[in-house]
Amino acid sequence: MAKRRTPESGAISRARLSKPADPLVVKLSASIDVDVRLAPHDVRGSRAHAKMLAAQGVIPKAEARRLDAALAEVAAEFARGEIAHVPELEDVHTHAERRLQEKIGAAAGRLHTGRSRNDQVALDERLWLRDEAAPSLDAALAELMSALAAQAEAHAATAMPGYTHLQRAQPVTLGHQLLAYVEAFSRDRGRLADCARRANESPLGSGALAATTLKLDREATARELGFSRPTRNSIDAVSARDALLELVSACAIAAATLSRLAEELVLWSTSEFAFVELDDAVCTGSSLMPQKKNPDVPELVRGKAGRVFGDLMALLTLVKGLPLAYNRDLQEDKPPAFDAVDTVRDSLRAMALVVRGAKFRVERLRSALDAGFLLATDLAEALVEGGVPFREAHAIVGRLAEHAARAGVEPDAMTEVERAAFHPLLAKVSLDPLASLARRDVVGGPAPRRVLAEAKRWRKELARAAR
Amino acid sequence: MAKRRTPESGAISRARLSKPADPLVVKLSASIDVDVRLAPHDVRGSRAHAKMLAAQGVIPKAEARRLDAALAEVAAEFARGEIAHVPELEDVHTHAERRLQEKIGAAAGRLHTGRSRNDQVALDERLWLRDEAAPSLDAALAELMSALAAQAEAHAATAMPGYTHLQRAQPVTLGHQLLAYVEAFSRDRGRLADCARRANESPLGSGALAATTLKLDREATARELGFSRPTRNSIDAVSARDALLELVSACAIAAATLSRLAEELVLWSTSEFAFVELDDAVCTGSSLMPQKKNPDVPELVRGKAGRVFGDLMALLTLVKGLPLAYNRDLQEDKPPAFDAVDTVRDSLRAMALVVRGAKFRVERLRSALDAGFLLATDLAEALVEGGVPFREAHAIVGRLAEHAARAGVEPDAMTEVERAAFHPLLAKVSLDPLASLARRDVVGGPAPRRVLAEAKRWRKELARAAR
Amino acid sequence: MAKRRTPESGAISRARLSKPADPLVVKLSASIDVDVRLAPHDVRGSRAHAKMLAAQGVIPKAEARRLDAALAEVAAEFARGEIAHVPELEDVHTHAERRLQEKIGAAAGRLHTGRSRNDQVALDERLWLRDEAAPSLDAALAELMSALAAQAEAHAATAMPGYTHLQRAQPVTLGHQLLAYVEAFSRDRGRLADCARRANESPLGSGALAATTLKLDREATARELGFSRPTRNSIDAVSARDALLELVSACAIAAATLSRLAEELVLWSTSEFAFVELDDAVCTGSSLMPQKKNPDVPELVRGKAGRVFGDLMALLTLVKGLPLAYNRDLQEDKPPAFDAVDTVRDSLRAMALVVRGAKFRVERLRSALDAGFLLATDLAEALVEGGVPFREAHAIVGRLAEHAARAGVEPDAMTEVERAAFHPLLAKVSLDPLASLARRDVVGGPAPRRVLAEAKRWRKELARAAR
Amino acid sequence: MAKRRTPESGAISRARLSKPADPLVVKLSASIDVDVRLAPHDVRGSRAHAKMLAAQGVIPKAEARRLDAALAEVAAEFARGEIAHVPELEDVHTHAERRLQEKIGAAAGRLHTGRSRNDQVALDERLWLRDEAAPSLDAALAELMSALAAQAEAHAATAMPGYTHLQRAQPVTLGHQLLAYVEAFSRDRGRLADCARRANESPLGSGALAATTLKLDREATARELGFSRPTRNSIDAVSARDALLELVSACAIAAATLSRLAEELVLWSTSEFAFVELDDAVCTGSSLMPQKKNPDVPELVRGKAGRVFGDLMALLTLVKGLPLAYNRDLQEDKPPAFDAVDTVRDSLRAMALVVRGAKFRVERLRSALDAGFLLATDLAEALVEGGVPFREAHAIVGRLAEHAARAGVEPDAMTEVERAAFHPLLAKVSLDPLASLARRDVVGGPAPRRVLAEAKRWRKELARAAR
Repeated sequence: MAKRRTPESGAISRARLSKPADPLVVKLSASIDVDVRLAPHDVRGSRAHAKMLAAQGVIPKAEARRLDAALAEVAAEFARGEIAHVPELEDVHTHAERRLQEKIGAAAGRLHTGRSRNDQVALDERLWLRDEAAPSLDAALAELMSALAAQAEAHAATAMPGYTHLQRAQPVTLGHQLLAYVEAFSRDRGRLADCARRANESPLGSGALAATTLKLDREATARELGFSRPTRNSIDAVSARDALLELVSACAIAAATLSRLAEELVLWSTSEFAFVELDDAVCTGSSLMPQKKNPDVPELVRGKAGRVFGDLMALLTLVKGLPLAYNRDLQEDKPPAFDAVDTVRDSLRAMALVVRGAKFRVERLRSALDAGFLLATDLAEALVEGGVPFREAHAIVGRLAEHAARAGVEPDAMTEVERAAFHPLLAKVSLDPLASLARRDVVGGPAPRRVLAEAKRWRKELARAAR
Repeated sequence: MAKRRTPESGAISRARLSKPADPLVVKLSASIDVDVRLAPHDVRGSRAHAKMLAAQGVIPKAEARRLDAALAEVAAEFARGEIAHVPELEDVHTHAERRLQEKIGAAAGRLHTGRSRNDQVALDERLWLRDEAAPSLDAALAELMSALAAQAEAHAATAMPGYTHLQRAQPVTLGHQLLAYVEAFSRDRGRLADCARRANESPLGSGALAATTLKLDREATARELGFSRPTRNSIDAVSARDALLELVSACAIAAATLSRLAEELVLWSTSEFAFVELDDAVCTGSSLMPQKKNPDVPELVRGKAGRVFGDLMALLTLVKGLPLAYNRDLQEDKPPAFDAVDTVRDSLRAMALVVRGAKFRVERLRSALDAGFLLATDLAEALVEGGVPFREAHAIVGRLAEHAARAGVEPDAMTEVERAAFHPLLAKVSLDPLASLARRDVVGGPAPRRVLAEAKRWRKELARAAR
Repeated sequence: MAKRRTPESGAISRARLSKPADPLVVKLSASIDVDVRLAPHDVRGSRAHAKMLAAQGVIPKAEARRLDAALAEVAAEFARGEIAHVPELEDVHTHAERRLQEKIGAAAGRLHTGRSRNDQVALDERLWLRDEAAPSLDAALAELMSALAAQAEAHAATAMPGYTHLQRAQPVTLGHQLLAYVEAFSRDRGRLADCARRANESPLGSGALAATTLKLDREATARELGFSRPTRNSIDAVSARDALLELVSACAIAAATLSRLAEELVLWSTSEFAFVELDDAVCTGSSLMPQKKNPDVPELVRGKAGRVFGDLMALLTLVKGLPLAYNRDLQEDKPPAFDAVDTVRDSLRAMALVVRGAKFRVERLRSALDAGFLLATDLAEALVEGGVPFREAHAIVGRLAEHAARAGVEPDAMTEVERAAFHPLLAKVSLDPLASLARRDVVGGPAPRRVLAEAKRWRKELARAAR
Repeated sequence: MAKRRTPESGAISRARLSKPADPLVVKLSASIDVDVRLAPHDVRGSRAHAKMLAAQGVIPKAEARRLDAALAEVAAEFARGEIAHVPELEDVHTHAERRLQEKIGAAAGRLHTGRSRNDQVALDERLWLRDEAAPSLDAALAELMSALAAQAEAHAATAMPGYTHLQRAQPVTLGHQLLAYVEAFSRDRGRLADCARRANESPLGSGALAATTLKLDREATARELGFSRPTRNSIDAVSARDALLELVSACAIAAATLSRLAEELVLWSTSEFAFVELDDAVCTGSSLMPQKKNPDVPELVRGKAGRVFGDLMALLTLVKGLPLAYNRDLQEDKPPAFDAVDTVRDSLRAMALVVRGAKFRVERLRSALDAGFLLATDLAEALVEGGVPFREAHAIVGRLAEHAARAGVEPDAMTEVERAAFHPLLAKVSLDPLASLARRDVVGGPAPRRVLAEAKRWRKELARAAR
């Protein structure tokens, strides 16, 4: 597709300067390859601005109509990738304005009335955050949560060891383990929603930093663009980047949780654990070893956490020690913000795929409970129910464990009589893991009926939200 | 003050192990010097737990009363620093339990019933976050905002250059500049409140990771401790650290904004800017140069941003790739969390001191407007009001600026006739910065009457909240 | 230019898998857009490998010749951008092999003998580091150092205030200040050289992780590719990424220093300092304010420090907790490594441009010495030369400063008699900044003759190295 | 031990200031609790400085002798912890000077002649880096390497699976796997040595930033303190912190590698892998579950990587955008530098303990080779030796693997006849893992005889260095 090439001569902002920029400077300064994705938001803001200018009588109504029509065309051209990137035009704002000029001539020059690229980019970023970044992350989180909740429902009664220190500790159910992630990801959704709500104020009309002497109606553009209100300080509006920092922090926190889920799936895919068989569609083989099947997607997702942490570090460093108001350093705010959102969204969706296609090996999970005396706490708690102080109970069971270890038997395999030798109450406790699980029937506990109810609750909630 | 030394023999958790820990291991494993500050929260949680255990009939009511009384004493001893740190006892939980044991003997052993250090530390951290970290940061933010708003009110009409790229750009008022920070810090308060609200669920009763077989009433302890509800998944409750990550993220964002305010105060304290005289109480001199007065506090605050960013990176790295549920790595979550909160709180309070004591040099600020043609945009906008498209207006004023530069005069000093040569409408625009400021009378703009109103609004709001 | 499209069917490594990869998985897994820049190194390694295989008799000599010729063609096609990127083929290694296959059929399949993508990518990265990354950074450092040294030579005697705490402290020369950066950047060169030297071992022949059962001659390929020797452990060779970490650390340290130089140039470009006029070729104007000239390049360079720190954080996180040997996470090592090197190299070159074109305002620099009593230490040291202990001297001069401040005069303007009232020895000290500078004639000091000699020494050294 | 309390009145550097510092400011400004560990280096530098001052005739020889004697006492008092920390005295330099004053009165005031705290702290940090930080890290690295090499020697022939993607890939030996870490840690030693060498220049005599007007002999103090030469630019000498950045980078890289070793030990300690039994001295049990034995030390070491990465980020952020020369922000350079060095040194030593005490379960390691067709590559390479191109060989073995999978047998268990059906050459390949290992006899390969030789070489080298 041939791109229309807009003339390069004279970037708008070089009026005062006597020399063209050096090519290396042009390269450093150009952000169009990155910020072109703000185009739909940029045009949307421009249309609202033009409409308001006309309503306020700052520009003629007829010209506003021409601007609006031409802006609609520009948006479409951006969407179709028809607007060639000209490094000398630096950014998406100038590309849009130049294209407008080609369409309607000098009238295009009215659009920048009472506006600066400083409030324009602040606006674009907030629209992107609210209408694109947060919703797409939210949807991807919901998709992964749904996949987890579905598996959790299917495996509400699938017994497996719960681990602490990666040592088998107590029986849980697979469903319970998977729902732990659903809880965590639901908090990520909360963080994103809070961030989008907090950022939902319109910076438009803040100008370069000192608003304008023209009679703009900032309430009108705020309303038109769906903001809760205009920002209340023009310097803050163009200088602050805490909304992006909050967004990327939320991404980093989600990426951290994703890396934990990924780690577990990598572990569970080993020959040693063998708790899960991942779908071939999310694995690769080896270029050298014909027998391999590798859990590539979880590995990549785990690795991508670093990328997102790096994005956050980049953005924090960027604003460190920066005086108000706008500084050119802020051009560098977009690459990490875009990268963090894209990376986490893709990672979430890829993990949803992994989880949906995972075949959990129920027998392996179940048999992993057979060694390791995972019901030691159950014994101790049975003593407690019989009135023994917990620490004493803990010590009694410890002696039993030691005895079993020395005798080379699993405590679970000891007879009632043998157990009773340590304390009469120990004889009658069922050491069936499923019995143990059923006993763990408190709020938030792994008892299968609890897990099933929670999985159903989540699925219902996710389905309702999706409607 | 002589500390009572509790016996070191046999840390509770080494029952199964045949060897004492190596001294280096003891050193690495001991967290008491750090987590001792959780003591009040730890004891508070224990008292709620004991009360519930008795209500549920899991432990005798009389023993619960003894436990409660003894726990109150332990809390007081911790508060008075009377409990010696014994590295072998590792953490605050064990120190508390050991001290309890010394007081009431074996009955102390009942307290750990249905509880693990895993849910205990999760509880302590949430209580600390909600009752100590967030409120102390919130108060410090409010203190700094009050100081800024008070100065803003006093300087609502103090004209100064607004800067972009650290170049003088357009006139603003000092009050407006200071209120930009008030806006930013108010969002930090919002983030902290959201974080505290999101974390306000009780992990108590989650046990090591799989809840318990005992009949605990998790709703009761949640209520008793002021939580909105119990956590809904026991594995998530002991594994997740996203609440701390969110808290430290909020700290890092606030630290970034602090570093910007600090940078401005350092700049404004230079001989070159000379916009402010900081109070001697926040400065130091030089050990070598007798004439120096250095803006140490803003410098330190700026530098401490790095510390807080480092804390965030430490915490993110910590959880990266960590399988569920509890892993010992998580011991390392407290140093960065505590450090971030302490650092930001102290920095905020120190900056409040700096701002309150700052003497702004009104004449210097005002005279900085005299050069640099800061009213260029005003001229262009006057043309716009006369119907000239903005880009054309921008170009006309650009020519005027160039002409003035070649003639070696400030455009502000050109006569009406000279200006009219560029466009008739340029003749009548007042180039007095105060006139320009008064014209910038839109929502969020720097017009003195707007700034005064905003400063008063903030002071009222902050005062109301403080009551 | 039409790209030759290689067939997508059946990526080599999916032999064992029954399903094609999901499109999202293909997207996540494909690294070709990033690692295509390794193509010349990849082909170079392949040619050395083929040559050795033939020499060892593992493959027929005739086929080795065909391989070599075809590989040369593939390299040329990569260089001309003629090889289309096929996401299903994942990476540069597979693209190269597939293209080879199209050229010479099954014989291409001999190339992967005794080799894996694991040792192949490790090799490519080391060749890139040694032959591309380190030299290009080294050259860019030398370029900036040359620009600084040239300005330093020109300004060896240009007096200006030296700053501590951004307060005027003592007189230095501009040349001395600029040479401070030359020293710092010369250490960056040292770090890069050390890194390249340390990484200069050949991983080729390490296979997937366990070397090979074939009789490869690793010494021969190491020699052929200019390495000092083969790596000594095949698992380490494919697992370790510390060479990249060291490289990116060196980049981050250089970026930190660059951000300091950038900050100074931004400060010095303000109306308040006005120490330097940057060339128009490295500045931009404003889209709104016709009078602006902004120091964009230093601002961008300052901001890009964040990007590089983020790259380092990404890479560190990536390897955290990764078991040996190769894991797919490591695919993510290239984006941060490439980005850090590109960013720092471009930043260095852009700053060289800035420095070369900078016009320092000698009079402004000189006159900044007139206020601030910068020769206070000179007075104290004159007393020391007369036998007064330094602390006492410091106090005497402090009293003089205080007296002057109260009297509202600059100490420099006090008469000899007035000064003598504080100590007789104070009368005769010349308070001319140039006299002070000449007195500061110790190794590493700012005396103009020292600075000139240092500037000349650096220029000579840099010129010699460039030859 | 009662500490001698030095008078608080009048910190030296507040001469010009009219007000005492606010208590919060005192708290922020005080660094003595952190920098007290620089005391021995500080005193050592002072002694060299005094000696040189006397040699140059700047101070009387008799006073230099008194200074020297008193400084020796001060050093001893610091070492015994007898010098009380007085926040108002800020740092270790002032504490030392004040104590000196108490001992010898006004003569103490001569010590600060031609010196500032700016060059003093730069000196102290370099001495600490060279004489304390780097050597202690080096020794700890050597200790861990020795432990690894000893185990490697013992297990040079212990077969186990090598992993890629945490999937069993090819046979290696345990010794080979352990030596991979030895290689990696040896590069960490190289980085530390390079860092210490690069930093080995004396900043003493650089003064506050502009050297001094006094006739100091910087060569003499450099020689006296064991530096290779004086720094060549006084501004760089007091401003730069790249030596610390390089040191902490080296720590972070080592911490990353440590976290990988730790991860493997955690994995290998699971019931599922069960490759190693860690010594009880480096494990803990559970406060709740009597049967648990947790690999605490590896977990803590893994977690501590985050701490060190955070230290690096803190330090990088600190210097970002900082103008020359000294700024108070730099006070914050010590906490991350000290913490990184302490953390990595302790982690290394703790891991040496873990490795030395580890009991590897040879049978488990060996039997893990029985499933997973780890000799697939051997078969393919046997075909290659018979003249089959590798890709074809890879495909043939892939078909064999698929067939075996469908038949539900391990390929290793197929008869010669069955194998020959796929290719005649496959019949005669020994599928004994030990045979495979013996075949992998190339430089850097896992053949037992190679591993044994490497382990012996390392042990010898480490022993020689330790002498």
